[in-house]
Amino acid sequence: MSAAAGSAPVRVALLGCGTVGAAVARGLVGRAERYAAHLGRPLELVGVAVRDVSTPREGVDPALLTTDAPGLVDRADVVVEVMGGLEPARGLIEQALRRGAHVVTANKQLIAQQGEELHALAAAQGVGLDYEAAVMAAVPVLSVVREALAGDEITAVRGVVNGSTNYVLDLVAREGVPFAEAVRQAGELGYLEADPTEDLEGLDAAAKIVILARTAWGLPVSLEDVDRSGISGLGDEDFARAADAGQVVKLVAAARPGPDGTVEVSVRPEALPADDPLAQVRGGTNVLVVDAVSAGRLQLQGGGAGGDETASAVLADVLRAAARV
Amino acid sequence: MSAAAGSAPVRVALLGCGTVGAAVARGLVGRAERYAAHLGRPLELVGVAVRDVSTPREGVDPALLTTDAPGLVDRADVVVEVMGGLEPARGLIEQALRRGAHVVTANKQLIAQQGEELHALAAAQGVGLDYEAAVMAAVPVLSVVREALAGDEITAVRGVVNGSTNYVLDLVAREGVPFAEAVRQAGELGYLEADPTEDLEGLDAAAKIVILARTAWGLPVSLEDVDRSGISGLGDEDFARAADAGQVVKLVAAARPGPDGTVEVSVRPEALPADDPLAQVRGGTNVLVVDAVSAGRLQLQGGGAGGDETASAVLADVLRAAARV
Repeated sequence: MSAAAGSAPVRVALLGCGTVGAAVARGLVGRAERYAAHLGRPLELVGVAVRDVSTPREGVDPALLTTDAPGLVDRADVVVEVMGGLEPARGLIEQALRRGAHVVTANKQLIAQQGEELHALAAAQGVGLDYEAAVMAAVPVLSVVREALAGDEITAVRGVVNGSTNYVLDLVAREGVPFAEAVRQAGELGYLEADPTEDLEGLDAAAKIVILARTAWGLPVSLEDVDRSGISGLGDEDFARAADAGQVVKLVAAARPGPDGTVEVSVRPEALPADDPLAQVRGGTNVLVVDAVSAGRLQLQGGGAGGDETASAVLADVLRAAARV
Repeated sequence: MSAAAGSAPVRVALLGCGTVGAAVARGLVGRAERYAAHLGRPLELVGVAVRDVSTPREGVDPALLTTDAPGLVDRADVVVEVMGGLEPARGLIEQALRRGAHVVTANKQLIAQQGEELHALAAAQGVGLDYEAAVMAAVPVLSVVREALAGDEITAVRGVVNGSTNYVLDLVAREGVPFAEAVRQAGELGYLEADPTEDLEGLDAAAKIVILARTAWGLPVSLEDVDRSGISGLGDEDFARAADAGQVVKLVAAARPGPDGTVEVSVRPEALPADDPLAQVRGGTNVLVVDAVSAGRLQLQGGGAGGDETASAVLADVLRAAARV
């Protein structure tokens, strides 16, 4: 790797070191040689911004930790935001883009709410803003609808994109656990957020389908456009009725072009026939079905959450960004 | 689209106008406005090389047809080869690469047999050589293993990648049709080539898994490395035994890293448990399961053949190539 050794490293800043951030940091260090060979120059993790440097982070060199996120952003060619939340994430991403750094993020709520403004800024600055990890983690649905189907015409996307609610629905449908008890069990096992509203009310799924719809059709779509209902209003009688009809209740996120350059976007529980690809998906698995004029029906499936799974997509985006530096 | 109108068009030459070629030509013409918007400049189909210009080609302007393939290659920025076969396809691709044109092809046997030499030439010339359509048509398995998993470590790929044999196996397993009769029916319906050896002996699947393995691990792999047996040696007793055990016979193509920088590649019929994702795939559908260290298991599924499906992948590669012109 003399070529790689002879070139200046691409400097990567990591903002956030939770489950995803730690997995990204371990990937950048543990796969350094592989990445240098891929790029023809090394990637260097120049720092990890955290709130508290005294918290131990498994597999992450403590010398890299800093609480000065803006200072770290100023030293990077590629900024990776995995803190979550709207602020300070948004401000730091804006700072990075204004400096001419490429940005990679896994922050679905931020991109769903502010992605269009951030994209306009990235385009004006001639830098990349990538977030494959924000939708279905390692299942590369955004690059498939944006690139693999670039020559085609996508007519609809439809999927199970929230693993937590799918875990709950699966417990009810397959194990016969009463709905309220299934929600309680999922919470106890850590499958639901401390505030479970994000999952149960379909807010997480709504953010994902908004990002997918924008990527598939390049049209403006916002969270307000989503016809949304979650699973919290379901009762055991809904599941009994579906089971009697040979159906399975799933939280379905869907989007398709509407009239006059609009996109119809929805998140709602549906009773599906048992042979629907969405009906067959188990536990925390996610699935997306994409219909296109020439390609017909494509189905993409995998683990839609988790630190390592999300890091897989973040790291692919980092390599893509680094190739542009 | 004033920007597009003001820029010189990217000149595209099409070699071959069978089922796939005609679908590519219709896409280039019918979606011209969409593609110009995508690229910021128009794509122009400058000619279609065929053996006989008097054969009518649905939806293709006869004025574009020519028998002078080498002359056409000399006038193009992007050359699309969908003639199939080894020669003259190989020679024309080589001519295009030497001229500095980007090449897109759907020719799996050519890439399986000569892909490494052609890649070396493309790299030396600084041009692209893309062939997403060669493996599973519109299911974008090559870009997923090459790009979406670039930051990950792929440990295995395994799939049903030949629709013709899967159609036969499905008829036997689900309809109880005797094996020899199922082969005959598939031939009659046009699901098998006139010489069915390519499908039945696993040669088609072998070419696909060789290309996938090279793409996934970047290691030299050739058709001679494939541990291959087709389905022609199967008898009704094999299907009866599998059915008794609750299993389903599928032609499985698989690859995984072996010792010392080798890749173990195989194509063979296997009796799979009914809940294996490969066991569930119907008729002409293809499926690929990819295992990676961080991403876990991804599953990609769709129609693995057909003119429109193959054209979808070819057209995406054309847009990618055109963006580099």
